[in-house]
Amino acid sequence: MEGAESEPTRIMVAVNESSIKGYPHASISSRGAFDWTLQKIIRSNTSGFKLLFLHVQVPDEDGFNDMDSIYASPGDFQDMKHRDMKRGLHLLEYFVGRSHEIGVPCEAWIKKGDPKEVICHEVKRVRPDLLVVGSRGLGPFQRVFVGTVSEFCAKHADCPVVTIKRKVNETPSDPVDD
Amino acid sequence: MEGAESEPTRIMVAVNESSIKGYPHASISSRGAFDWTLQKIIRSNTSGFKLLFLHVQVPDEDGFNDMDSIYASPGDFQDMKHRDMKRGLHLLEYFVGRSHEIGVPCEAWIKKGDPKEVICHEVKRVRPDLLVVGSRGLGPFQRVFVGTVSEFCAKHADCPVVTIKRKVNETPSDPVDD
Repeated sequence: MEGAESEPTRIMVAVNESSIKGYPHASISSRGAFDWTLQKIIRSNTSGFKLLFLHVQVPDEDGFNDMDSIYASPGDFQDMKHRDMKRGLHLLEYFVGRSHEIGVPCEAWIKKGDPKEVICHEVKRVRPDLLVVGSRGLGPFQRVFVGTVSEFCAKHADCPVVTIKRKVNETPSDPVDD
Repeated sequence: MEGAESEPTRIMVAVNESSIKGYPHASISSRGAFDWTLQKIIRSNTSGFKLLFLHVQVPDEDGFNDMDSIYASPGDFQDMKHRDMKRGLHLLEYFVGRSHEIGVPCEAWIKKGDPKEVICHEVKRVRPDLLVVGSRGLGPFQRVFVGTVSEFCAKHADCPVVTIKRKVNETPSDPVDD
């Protein structure tokens, strides 16, 4: 147990942007998952843990605010890609910044694709000790339409998974928002 | 966060007896769940956590070894109940003893009934910050016949749940055994 004690516990936290406020704001549920990890697991033992923040950008969703943009040259697409990347970086900056303040070592990175698939793939690759995912805590009816990343990960990720449900008092008027 | 830091994180660990060795031996998967909690979550921060061990006795299973017993008077049933209780206490003694050695505060208690229902009921009652359950990691075919407590709890327990799958090298020849 001495050897295990020297290696920090690596916790992967899947984070995404708010559907209401957009980048660079984090979603309510991913902030909740992060806060829970700090308060309930890491506590004062900041050197015993390492946080791994994964942000998966959904190609379609990221283009949402660009509906009125005009793309006239290959360079315009390049600009758009740069803008997407910049937004993702802003999001991660929030989590890395807060971890730094508290003194927990961390790493953060961005991937593109279907969040649930990419998260499970990254778990296989980096082998964290625990994956923490936020959840909007939607009912069965709402879930049919929006799908839930957390449910998929709890079933398919190759490591222990804990799902943190959004607090009732933080639920927006449309619970699908986050 | 100062206030939150003073209250320890309360982790409920559901434990049961081994199907191979019987009482007072703990099942492979519940020992695995306990070890994981110590090594990956509590680590050296023993004063930051409190462990709550819940053992649910299944009335039928506990009578299994008494198939050849003869019950001749009401007192014989009383003896049997005492024996069951004693075995459950021996099981909990293992977990409480190890926690004590390490210096993590803990509580342990026994309930009777259907484990999955009782665990969810106890979560509602004692409100832990996290529930840790071991799992044999059975495939879909095996699950049909044995049911899985961990899956039910992950879905229905009123707190964050983490399921710790049994290690491959610890799986007995019949994976339904534990």
